[in-house]
Amino acid sequence: MPHLPLPVPAVDWSPDHRALRILDQRLLPGAEVVRDLLHLEEIIDAIRTLAVRGAPAIGVAAAIGLVISLETDSEGHDSRARALLDSYAARLQRARPTAVNLGWAIERMVRAAHRSSVGRVLATLRAEAEAIRAEDVAMCEAIGQHGLAIVPDGARVLTHCNAGALATAGTGTALAPLYAAHARGRALTVYADETRPLRQGARLTAWELSRAGISVSVLPDGAAASLLSQGLVDLVIVGADRIAANGDVANKVGTYGVALAAAAHNVPFYVAAPRSTIDPHTATGRDIVIEHRDADELGELPPGVPAWNPAFDITPRALVRGYLTDRGFLEPPFGAAFLLETGASA
Amino acid sequence: MPHLPLPVPAVDWSPDHRALRILDQRLLPGAEVVRDLLHLEEIIDAIRTLAVRGAPAIGVAAAIGLVISLETDSEGHDSRARALLDSYAARLQRARPTAVNLGWAIERMVRAAHRSSVGRVLATLRAEAEAIRAEDVAMCEAIGQHGLAIVPDGARVLTHCNAGALATAGTGTALAPLYAAHARGRALTVYADETRPLRQGARLTAWELSRAGISVSVLPDGAAASLLSQGLVDLVIVGADRIAANGDVANKVGTYGVALAAAAHNVPFYVAAPRSTIDPHTATGRDIVIEHRDADELGELPPGVPAWNPAFDITPRALVRGYLTDRGFLEPPFGAAFLLETGASA
Repeated sequence: MPHLPLPVPAVDWSPDHRALRILDQRLLPGAEVVRDLLHLEEIIDAIRTLAVRGAPAIGVAAAIGLVISLETDSEGHDSRARALLDSYAARLQRARPTAVNLGWAIERMVRAAHRSSVGRVLATLRAEAEAIRAEDVAMCEAIGQHGLAIVPDGARVLTHCNAGALATAGTGTALAPLYAAHARGRALTVYADETRPLRQGARLTAWELSRAGISVSVLPDGAAASLLSQGLVDLVIVGADRIAANGDVANKVGTYGVALAAAAHNVPFYVAAPRSTIDPHTATGRDIVIEHRDADELGELPPGVPAWNPAFDITPRALVRGYLTDRGFLEPPFGAAFLLETGASA
Repeated sequence: MPHLPLPVPAVDWSPDHRALRILDQRLLPGAEVVRDLLHLEEIIDAIRTLAVRGAPAIGVAAAIGLVISLETDSEGHDSRARALLDSYAARLQRARPTAVNLGWAIERMVRAAHRSSVGRVLATLRAEAEAIRAEDVAMCEAIGQHGLAIVPDGARVLTHCNAGALATAGTGTALAPLYAAHARGRALTVYADETRPLRQGARLTAWELSRAGISVSVLPDGAAASLLSQGLVDLVIVGADRIAANGDVANKVGTYGVALAAAAHNVPFYVAAPRSTIDPHTATGRDIVIEHRDADELGELPPGVPAWNPAFDITPRALVRGYLTDRGFLEPPFGAAFLLETGASA
């Protein structure tokens, strides 16, 4: 296996820029397998089966994957690539129909191609995919730098799920400030909630932090309140799937309970996300539809017993100490004035 | 397999009273296997490997197991049984050294035997074991009857871990009011927290309630706060491992987070336990030492990543709406006056 940088990018070009390179997250933490993908079907399969996951990482994988698969199948002939573009884009979008960043990245790629001059489709797509990737890396870097203010030397940090390097093309969202602090030589103690049912904290967050040399322990989700009550945590930092105009946050189920326990013990609770995660068109958390997932995610249950298995929960604005974005710390409400100030999200 | 009553007793005499009968909880919910145990080593093994678990059930298993194993190995000769008694009792006590009820039951058996007249050791032990079992059944029944007041028809109930029939010789502690209400024809909707890391809610609570015809769903521990926030729960009821004099409650890790979320949404949170679980000699929850358990309970973790895995947490008195015991609802403080009023715990 080639030497991988720290933290490991979830998605990138291969070194010769002729393939989409992903770290196969289905196999973590047991094995570190890098895959170089060339063909549309294997790229769709990687997205569908969560070999690559996390909203930003999926967007980047789709963008690079679109141009790579077109180059492969057109053998570099621009007119053939243009003929294949719309059907390839549509097939990629169906890989995970509810992934907002996937649709956003593909639409941006198709728009760029349609604007390009004759004979320049592949070159335009390649440049646009690289722009999407580089913007994601820069977004993570900006969150990390702004977040340095809340992660002093010796900080003890609790996080939930995985909003790290494995979810982006860069150093992550919630974990970006931890990598930035670690790079400055600050000592950290991180606690990662296991994050049932899919164990992203135990499998992914613990893997990427420990691999980068950051001290991390895993706890059962139910132990977080006890950890906080014992004064062992200085701050909580989590990612977000969507942030409503009033500041309510949709994130991986379990986030809300952690926020309640943090509030009970006066531990600051931060949400880190790209500016584009803030949705001024969603008034409050009540307007966010929560997907319920299959019982089989919970493992063996007695015959006939159903599961109550929502993917996300809503943490109300009152429990959030700060909203850390690539534009710095932002304050709700995120309404019309906010849109004018920061620009419409793509 | 013989027909089993509902709810299934975790521990009992075999029908001919010549063996200790247990339901093997290691195999639930996949298989319902009843074992009739005769020999000391298999009884110790059942306790040590959690084939029988739950403080009251372990006490009853040890009491019946002691007399059965003595009868087996003495071939019914009273003097031989008396000669074996102390060593068998000591070996049983070491099966789970931290199980308070195990030590309590064995001590009570040995005291009874030492008080018995010549030739009456086995008969005395048999009567004492039956008294311990019957008292446990009656304790559950009393909790269930007193608890009917808080479980109206149509009640939607959240519970954590397993404080049910599988943890006692009767209908359980936290679940006893649910069985009592179900027996009266009241409709119930129960939500069982999965209860990581060992999944007692998913494997045991869901199994015993669904088998009794009570509607039950399993949720990830992290989803409990979201469930409560959505107004889907009328009351929370959990068991207790120890209750301090000021009313603080030690129970399975995850209980405290549920109590915080219940308080945030004005859902009453009840603790159900035998009177003997209240320890007037423990002033507050801070005086209760919490056992930390092995990382391997959490499943696969990245190499070298430790777990923070406490067995119990402390729910402060302020979050508990009521203490449901076999003597009815009791109110802290549980100090000297309480001791005089209710009698010292055994």
